Formats: sequence, structure tokens, C-alpha cells
Amino acid sequence: MAKHAIVVLLLSIVLFILAQQSSSSQPFKPISSHRAPKFLGGFSTSKPYHDHSRNHNHQRLEWLRQYPYETRYFEQRLDHFSFLELPTFNQRYLISLEHWSGPGQLGPIFVYCGNEGDIEWFAANTGFVWEIAPSFGAMVVFPEHRYYGESMPFGSQEEAYKNAATLSYLTADQALADFSVLITNLKRNLSAEACPVVLFGGSYGGMLAAWMRLKYPHIAIGALASSAPILQFEDIVPPESFYDIVSNDFKRESTSCFNTIKASWNALISEGQKENGLSQLTRMFRLCRELKNTEELVNWLDSAYSYLAMVNYPYPSDFIMPLPGHPIREVCRKIDGCPDGTSILERVSEGVGVYYNHTGEVNCFELDDDPHGMNGWNWQACTEMVMPLSSSPDTSMFPTYDFNFSAFKEECWTDFKVNPRPRWITTEFGGKDFMTDLKTFGSNIIFSNGFLDPWSGGSVTQNVSDSIVALNMQEGAHHLDLRAATAEDPNWLVEQRATEIRVIKKWLSDYYEAKGASLLSNVETGDRATSM
Amino acid sequence: MAKHAIVVLLLSIVLFILAQQSSSSQPFKPISSHRAPKFLGGFSTSKPYHDHSRNHNHQRLEWLRQYPYETRYFEQRLDHFSFLELPTFNQRYLISLEHWSGPGQLGPIFVYCGNEGDIEWFAANTGFVWEIAPSFGAMVVFPEHRYYGESMPFGSQEEAYKNAATLSYLTADQALADFSVLITNLKRNLSAEACPVVLFGGSYGGMLAAWMRLKYPHIAIGALASSAPILQFEDIVPPESFYDIVSNDFKRESTSCFNTIKASWNALISEGQKENGLSQLTRMFRLCRELKNTEELVNWLDSAYSYLAMVNYPYPSDFIMPLPGHPIREVCRKIDGCPDGTSILERVSEGVGVYYNHTGEVNCFELDDDPHGMNGWNWQACTEMVMPLSSSPDTSMFPTYDFNFSAFKEECWTDFKVNPRPRWITTEFGGKDFMTDLKTFGSNIIFSNGFLDPWSGGSVTQNVSDSIVALNMQEGAHHLDLRAATAEDPNWLVEQRATEIRVIKKWLSDYYEAKGASLLSNVETGDRATSM
Repeated sequence: MAKHAIVVLLLSIVLFILAQQSSSSQPFKPISSHRAPKFLGGFSTSKPYHDHSRNHNHQRLEWLRQYPYETRYFEQRLDHFSFLELPTFNQRYLISLEHWSGPGQLGPIFVYCGNEGDIEWFAANTGFVWEIAPSFGAMVVFPEHRYYGESMPFGSQEEAYKNAATLSYLTADQALADFSVLITNLKRNLSAEACPVVLFGGSYGGMLAAWMRLKYPHIAIGALASSAPILQFEDIVPPESFYDIVSNDFKRESTSCFNTIKASWNALISEGQKENGLSQLTRMFRLCRELKNTEELVNWLDSAYSYLAMVNYPYPSDFIMPLPGHPIREVCRKIDGCPDGTSILERVSEGVGVYYNHTGEVNCFELDDDPHGMNGWNWQACTEMVMPLSSSPDTSMFPTYDFNFSAFKEECWTDFKVNPRPRWITTEFGGKDFMTDLKTFGSNIIFSNGFLDPWSGGSVTQNVSDSIVALNMQEGAHHLDLRAATAEDPNWLVEQRATEIRVIKKWLSDYYEAKGASLLSNVETGDRATSM
Repeated sequence: MAKHAIVVLLLSIVLFILAQQSSSSQPFKPISSHRAPKFLGGFSTSKPYHDHSRNHNHQRLEWLRQYPYETRYFEQRLDHFSFLELPTFNQRYLISLEHWSGPGQLGPIFVYCGNEGDIEWFAANTGFVWEIAPSFGAMVVFPEHRYYGESMPFGSQEEAYKNAATLSYLTADQALADFSVLITNLKRNLSAEACPVVLFGGSYGGMLAAWMRLKYPHIAIGALASSAPILQFEDIVPPESFYDIVSNDFKRESTSCFNTIKASWNALISEGQKENGLSQLTRMFRLCRELKNTEELVNWLDSAYSYLAMVNYPYPSDFIMPLPGHPIREVCRKIDGCPDGTSILERVSEGVGVYYNHTGEVNCFELDDDPHGMNGWNWQACTEMVMPLSSSPDTSMFPTYDFNFSAFKEECWTDFKVNPRPRWITTEFGGKDFMTDLKTFGSNIIFSNGFLDPWSGGSVTQNVSDSIVALNMQEGAHHLDLRAATAEDPNWLVEQRATEIRVIKKWLSDYYEAKGASLLSNVETGDRATSM
């Protein structure tokens, strides 16, 4: 313990000295990757679904054959909340009417709340919705979130991302209004006004689904919000939870693995300070270009570990990266399995290869996943989505870091010329005392969580009321339940999905009952759903 | 019946011809007063509370002694829903901490949602809130609605009302966000985060209160929405209900009175068409300036009858105008009581004097209550608050009129250079199938209605669920229950208020129970409230 404290102290001193040195030459951010909460935004701009592996086009075609959908566009106001005459934009949405039982039978409408990326990517990674839709006789709609994918205001991403003024309408409220206007219009055009809408969403999309059920109960009768950290704001939950959970995911696989990573930051900084240290690190980690400072490498490793915890699925997957099943287990196997005498940094370098190069196709690693530094999620993190993350010296394997709002605010001003509003989300959507606030208010929300997912620390993990419930998977990662079923699904995952289907069926039957409609056919299709 | 049909037909032909004639010279609006729903906006700009009668200052001082409050200002964002850097503005609010039992006892906070006018005027006409606050140990807050009273963006009313761009942030959503940000801030500054907020509101303010409870359940535990026509949008309720109820209010007092008024439009138009007819009408109705067309007079009379129905209180009052108790009864007494041989127009002229000149102080009548034509409520009616009102030839005593959206839209363009969004309110706040939508969602709203009030036709008049309830007064007018108690209050009004107090007490005790706090003192003060 005393030794541990000394290491932390030394590390702090080193970081402090480094910060002092670099402040004169170029801005040094202790751990700037802490700034923007690690959602999926970083992977959204380059459309990784299409590009990041050779197999993708093939997979996409296969997937399309299974779940054919149409791509449509809907003209949206740029600002729903003022009467300024601004240019409109086209919101893309994917729609499948194939299995819809139609307005006569009040066939349900399943809407996935698009999040911070290309909607096709989310559609491809949300197999659950497509798979259950036929048995519900449901229409499926995947509207894209404004400022992502093809849904760009001002005609192009370049124009939309030009400056703070053009970006200023990239907000959660505007996105919810987009969804609401689109759904209302769609229903009217299909004479489907009375058809019940069920919302789905994962991660930020899950937050939107939950908020939309709360704000637009007249538009959606319920929401499955998967891995939705709606409580990760202000001081509602401890800011350490994210990195603590990542760390625990490693520790549960192997304490020595956890310890190696925890010790690696110090080793890394020492190495970086040596003569030719940065070149040495560049070679050791097989980077495509020379490191400018150790912080770049710290961020690159932090990203890998954090995303590994998010997509720590029990079978091989290809959401953010092509990965083996239980990828953290694999990383630790590599780290622990090196021959005796292997240095800490060599071990870490071996381990991180599981994340960045599982296919073995990569010759060298790019450090900059978003060279323009202007991706949409960073903007959202700098405006509304201020989710404080810290790293505790005791429980985290990451370098110690205390979220500092002033520094954060300054960085946002540097990057975007915008001032964050850290209290807006809790004012607009609540959260501070969610359990009391919603005890007598609201209904029909499932908060599904996987406790391996670092975002579960900021999610609703306890039942709020009879119909605002938490369904937790001890061994689940980030919105695992929304993924397509696989032959390797463990029993608890199969059960989780069955429970979700049962709850959604209940929402629908309650709705049909309230509506007083004759629903024989819907009840029948609903019954079939239980056998899944 | 046949004769009636012929009269209507003739009237239509006359109106048509008039419309044709005038279209070449100056724009003729068949009944443009139908355009903006008759809320209180027209009376808000000139601060009638202070000015329209000599006694007001005296009354105000008296009232202040009874319920002393402080006037404060809070800096608000002009646009809560974008990150544009716009000038902020100061929102005025009235606050009384005098009877508040404080944060230690979780003392409640009563918030009145300011509507389309000077907040002092509404505070003075909402005695109910001030009267019950002491027994609840409640703080009282009256925030002013943006763009009204002293809460002017851009520094002055002139600047704020300059054009469509400066007015574009005058919306219900922005107003609700103002209230939410203000309350959250106020609670934080007073360490009162856990203190329950109860909302009150009448008319448009009642709509805001109901919508705020639905949209911000984490900020307010319940809402008393009095005379809040949240269903008067699109085709949810028949557009004829408003004028039908006004007409019935006259008919129930006297069928001959109703018939005289119904016949008067025809007489008025005939008279106006005669040589010197307009001068004759100007003299007969004692107008301060010469009539330009009969439509001006139609509007002036329409306003009087409509507002009379809204403020048809059972005792003398001075809300919009100084009026006797049962003012419609008085109007009909005048109309019916003229000597035999009095013409229809002379009768109507006598009758309308009850509304415009009850005090007898007026020498001649001004036709233009808002000479600039730019009052805030007209803007709101031309943007979001599109509440279609028609007048039926069968059931209404008013000239036949079918709400015509195209014509309405054109007028709004002429007046404000803005396009109405008639479907926004129902998309944003619901309403289309309120009874089903909220059966399993939401709680703690009282919709109180008076069936003499023409707005009751667009309000929620049936219980939606156990805790979203309608409390109706057969003989009540526009938000009568919110007025201060008087010695002349009929029993049904006393009972209505007692029921409202009981329901609010229930909300509070449910909240305290959910909060798990020890509330002996609050329950005690609550108990005292029942004896009122």
C-alpha cells in the first residue's frame, strides 16, 4: 500500500513536471481523452461499417438480404424551438414495412433512436429489433441523428461542422424533436395514427429513447433503453465509476494483467523521458508515425482498454473493431503469457494488439482516429453531454485524474469556441433524484444494463416503479442485448431478451386495452414472440 | 328555420360582396378577430392593472400589504435549445418567502406559470395561490413569461417586437425552459433542492402548467391547470365550441337577448351600407373616431361578448374590465329592458356598454385596443398557438365563420412575416389522443374548468386517470377558482377550492412518503389547509 502510494506520488510529480515543460511549447492535456466520454462518435465519421475491414461489404449484403429496408429522407427544420427561417435539411431514415401488420390491426412501429454515427452502422448492430419485428407484426424505422451520417444540415458535413454557429443545433432536444416530427408525419401518411410506437436505443441512443419516452409519451408507448448512462451528469454518480468498471473488467480476468497495465503508465513516461525514448516507444508499439509526446500513447491505450470493456462480448464481434469473444480475456492472456523477462511495456504492446490488430492485417497503427478533431460527439461533449469522468488512484488501473471543469471548459473554448452548459441535461431531462421523481410519474421504460459495461455505472440499475424497470446482466457489456442473436449466446442473454420481449408485449397489450380495440391478431403475434 | 337560413344566406352574400368590393381598396378580413384566440394578450401590453381605472393604484397597495412580495430578476438564455451565442435577458419574478417553512421541513414551492401579460396583473388576479400558501408553509413564486411585462429580450419591448427574427424565441418551449432553469437555480441557491414544487396556471398559463408537469416531472410534482384549453388545436375538439359556449351563456340568461344579438350583425351591415351609415353607427355606438368599415364594429362587439363569457363571474370583478357580478345577465337585462320600439342596434349598443363602460366614466370608446398590431399573443397565435375557431350558423349568435387555415396563414405572413406551424403543439405536447396516451403515463394534474368559460370546450373535462383529474364547475367562468376568495363566493366555488387543496395535499404527502422524509410539521400545516 505504501509502495503503491509512492508510485502514484512519483507519477503525479512526473506528470506535473511534464505539464510544466510542455506548457511553454505546445498545449499539454494531462489526459485529454478523458474529456469526451467514450461513446461511439469517434468511429462514426469514417463509416467504419463499410470501410474498416475487407469483409464488411460482403457482410452488409448478407445482412440486407435478411432484413431488407428502404432508405428515405425527410425534410426537417433546423431549429424546432424558434421561428427563425433557417435552411431545412434532409434526415435519412431506414424503414421496413415488410412485416408490419398495418393500421387496421394497429400494427406496432419499432423505432430505433439513432445515435452519434451513421445509422446503417447502428442498424447492422441492432439485430434484436429486426429479429423480433416479424413476430410483433411491427414496422421498423431507424431515423438517423442530425449531424451524423447523411443527415447533414447546410448541405454537407464540411458546412455543418464549419463553426460553433453551424454546429449550434446539434443537441439532444433537437434530435428528439426530429424523431417526433418524423414519426408523427410517417404515421399520418400511413393512416397509422393509432399504431403504438416502441422506442429502442443503445448508449447515447438509449439515453434518447428513455428521454423521448419521458418527453413524448403521446408519441411512444414505451422505450427499451440499453446501456443508457442518463445519470452520468454533474455529481449524480461518482465520476470514477467508468474507469473503475473498466479496471475491474481486467482485474476479474487476471490481477497480474491489471497490475501490469497499472504499472505501465509509469514505465511509459520514464521511457518517453529517455533520450530517443519517444522513438523507442514508437517502434515498440508499431506506430505509423513518430510519437510527439507520451500523452498520445496514453490516450491510444486508454481508448483501447475503454472500448474493450464496452465491447467485451462473449463471442467474436465486429462492432467497433473485429474482435475475438471475451476480448479482455484475450488481452490479458497476451499480457500474462509473455515469456518471463518481458518488459511491462512489451507486454502492454502485445496486449493492445488484440484490440487494434485482431485480424493481423495491420502493419502499423494510426494514432489519430479523428484527424480533424471536429467530430460531432466531441461537440456534444463540449456543450450538453458533460459527463465528468475521473480516475481514482486506488481502484483504477488508469493514471490518476480528477475531472476539472475549468480546464474542460477552456479546452472546449479552444476547440469549438463554445461554452459547455453542464447543468442543462439534468434541468431538461432530470436525473438528480430520478428514483423519487419518477415513482409516481411515467411508465414503460426498460433500462437494460451489462455490468461489464463501464457505462453501467451511470445508468439506472434499479427498478424505479412497477413499469420503469432495470434489467441487468452481470456478464453483459455495452448494449449486448440489442445485438442479433448468435448460436454462442449464453443462457442469461437469451433470457434477458425473452424478458424484454415479454415486457414490450405487456406495454402493447395495455395500450390495446386502453385503446379498446379488438386485438386478437396482435395478441396472437405477440404470443408467438414469447417462444423466441 | 327556413327564414333563418335565408337570413344567413343573405348575410353571406352581403359579406361576400363586401369582401369583393374592399379587396380592391383595402384588405378586408371577414372576421379577423377570429384569428387570434381571445386570451388575455390584448390587455397585457398597456398594463391595465395599473392604468385602466383610477382605483387601481389604491387597490394594488392594499393587496401588497396583504401579500408582500419581492421583485427580482434572473438572467436567462434567449435560446435554451441551441448553442448560438445570443444576448441574454432578465426575467422578472415575484417571490414571497414570508410563509415558507424552509428547506429543513421540505417546505413546498408554489409557482405560478406566468402567461401573456404583466406578471403583477396575474399575481393580483390569482389570490388563491397567495391565500393558501401560508397554511402549506409554501414559498410563492410568480415568474413572468418572456416577451411580456418587464421580461423583454433585446433590452426593450420595441427591440424585442421589432420583427420576426427578434420575436422568434417567443415560444411555449422556451418559456417552460425559462421556468425550469429559474426554479432549479432558485432551489439550489436556497438549498431547497428537495423541496417539492407545485405549479399553478390559468388560461395559457394553465396550459403551460400542465405541459410543464408533463415535460418536467422532475421539477414539479403536480400542476393545477385552470381553464387550460390544451385540446383546442387542429381537429381535436370542434372549432365551434368557443362561440357556441359564449352564445349559450347569453341564451341561458335570455333567449330574446341571444336572438337580438344574433340578428344584430345583419342590421349592422345593412346600416353600414346606407349613405352616412358608418357615421350613424359611429354615433350610435359612441366611438371616439369614425368607423372605417363595419368589420371594425363587428370585432369590437365580438370581443366584448367573448370576454364577457370568460369573466362571467358571480360577483363584481375587475380582471379585464371593471364589471358587475353576472355581467352577461346585466348585458341581457339592458338589451331586453329597452322600451318597446328600440331598434336592435340601439339595444346592442346599450348592452355592450355594460362591458366597455360599467363605471360610467367613459365618454367615447376606442376601437383599437392594440394600435400597433404587434402584441405578443398575436405572434404566438400566428406561430404555435393555432387554435381554430369557427362560428356555426345554427348554434352560435355570432356571424357564421369557418376557420380557414390558408387565409389565416396569409394574414400571419402579412402581419409578422412568419409561417404558422399548426401541428407543432400537438407534436410537442400531445393532445390528439390524450385520454389513451396518459392513461398509464403521468400523474398529478388537476384540470379545473368552468362550463360558462368558452375555453372549457378545448380543455380536459374528464378524468384521465386516478391522478390526472378534471374538476368542473357548472357555473364557473375562466379560471374563477384561482381568484381570491370573496364573501360572495357560491358554495360550489368554495367546495371546488377545498377539493383542489385536498388534492394538492395528497401530492405533497405522496412526495414526502416517496422521499422518506420525516414530515410531521408539513403534515400539520397541510392539515390546517383542510379547514379553509
